[in-house]
Amino acid sequence: MENFSQRLNSAIRRTRSPLVVGLDPRLSLLPKTYESLVTGTEWDQAQAFREYCCWVIDVVADLVPAVKPQLAFFEELGPAGMQALADVVRYAREKQLIVIGDGKRGDIGTTAQAYAAAYLGATSAWGMDSLTVNPYLGVDTLQPFLQVARARQAGVFVLVKTSNPGSGDFQDLAVTGGELPHGADPTTLYQCVAQHLDRLSREPAAEIDGDGLCEIGAVVGATYPAQLQALRSVMPRCWLLIPGFGAQGGSAADTAGGFHPDGLGAIVNSSRAILYAFDPADRSHQWVDAVRQATVLANEQLRADTPAGNL
Amino acid sequence: MENFSQRLNSAIRRTRSPLVVGLDPRLSLLPKTYESLVTGTEWDQAQAFREYCCWVIDVVADLVPAVKPQLAFFEELGPAGMQALADVVRYAREKQLIVIGDGKRGDIGTTAQAYAAAYLGATSAWGMDSLTVNPYLGVDTLQPFLQVARARQAGVFVLVKTSNPGSGDFQDLAVTGGELPHGADPTTLYQCVAQHLDRLSREPAAEIDGDGLCEIGAVVGATYPAQLQALRSVMPRCWLLIPGFGAQGGSAADTAGGFHPDGLGAIVNSSRAILYAFDPADRSHQWVDAVRQATVLANEQLRADTPAGNL
Repeated sequence: MENFSQRLNSAIRRTRSPLVVGLDPRLSLLPKTYESLVTGTEWDQAQAFREYCCWVIDVVADLVPAVKPQLAFFEELGPAGMQALADVVRYAREKQLIVIGDGKRGDIGTTAQAYAAAYLGATSAWGMDSLTVNPYLGVDTLQPFLQVARARQAGVFVLVKTSNPGSGDFQDLAVTGGELPHGADPTTLYQCVAQHLDRLSREPAAEIDGDGLCEIGAVVGATYPAQLQALRSVMPRCWLLIPGFGAQGGSAADTAGGFHPDGLGAIVNSSRAILYAFDPADRSHQWVDAVRQATVLANEQLRADTPAGNL
Repeated sequence: MENFSQRLNSAIRRTRSPLVVGLDPRLSLLPKTYESLVTGTEWDQAQAFREYCCWVIDVVADLVPAVKPQLAFFEELGPAGMQALADVVRYAREKQLIVIGDGKRGDIGTTAQAYAAAYLGATSAWGMDSLTVNPYLGVDTLQPFLQVARARQAGVFVLVKTSNPGSGDFQDLAVTGGELPHGADPTTLYQCVAQHLDRLSREPAAEIDGDGLCEIGAVVGATYPAQLQALRSVMPRCWLLIPGFGAQGGSAADTAGGFHPDGLGAIVNSSRAILYAFDPADRSHQWVDAVRQATVLANEQLRADTPAGNL
């Protein structure tokens, strides 16, 4: 089997798209067609999530390389939601989509290992291709995720600079005393995290593909384009997963700095702008067209305004 | 209903104990009695987790105020594990134990809200009394957790200084430019997080109890006793949840600095040293005694070497 980065690159080249469709199912936003399930038990509601997400997967599978289910929304429905998540992941993988589980997990030692096994391991009930991870607990807590991921040719995306307004509270703090892998001073916390990821991407265990990218990624928001561009050069072997495009206010051009000149190295997430690109009161199947058109449009914007046009 | 801090205080006074029993079920460590379930399907394995955790709850319920299920270990068993978690939480609450869900969740905006609703909300499938949360994404991402928690008289424990060897990689970085609620310079990232928690604990929305404590807590490892003592004075209204006691190497005396003089304000977690305080090959019911004795011993150590003796 190809490694994570090779598979992601193949999917991007096949679709000529760096777009990730975020699967954020919300009861209050689903098309009215699902109303009877939405007002039912949590198992009915989970069935609505399952059906809607699988339907979206059908609509976008030939247009994009990856989908990103947001675990929180499935967890909100309890065990029923977690079962729906497993079914959605399996369906997406059957359709050749790379699945990025957005769980932002993080813990120490054997607990980190358990999270990694839960979502990325060989006997995982969810069997995702990659998982988002929070670095606050330290570099030693990233290693179990990387080890489990590597054993199954999966990937890990570490939060660096998030897209929310308050991301600066801690991430932007000026720091001193951080480890300096390049001899260059990291000036902020998020830069320090990025330098550690760069160092990890240069270790012998890292699985570099033919395009110079590996199984380690960083989450960097489209809402901070200058930082995005700087971070691209700090960690050239790491994928950048860029949220904040679309409903959160980032434009396609804002994501351009995250790409390598060949159009690889970055994937751009859009959730609400695609998933709910329809009149919520619509009871016809117009929303099928609306979701597909929103995906096509996002692809066109990314090809026009970023190096993804070179794919 | 009493608020979170009142309930926690009542439970601590009733048991004269600040000890939290960490529910970290591991297939490889369960008593041999569970062997047939352990080698079965994931539903069998989840049943072993359910039975063992509920049995531990029976053994310790009159000795300790709270239990802390570690979500990762339940997630490792997929939806079956998540169902077992719900049953374990319900059972612990029936036994008057405060349940601290150790999930270290964190995300932005409506996603944070979904996590909070999932574990702390009025319609939560798990219905925990509190949840651990990761602050890396910023102070704005803590607010949805606090809002949902307050609506159900629940609590939130935010990671500040974790117990693992690598916790210093980012948490100990010297920072400048952080918000300075007291006019005092936070010198490290973890101190900056602590100052923000102190500020949140002084807002009108905070639910202060008769002992001057509120529904906001901080996670601070027993493995860093000097930092623990300093942090106690930085955020006097916040609970400190102290992991690292027992198997991770922290002694009872190492946790003393986390308490107020009256013996309140801190809770100390022990997981493996209690849960697996028996000969793993034991097929008799000696492990019932071993787990109870380990709990009694931990209580005695905490009463002897910390202000919990004043309870």
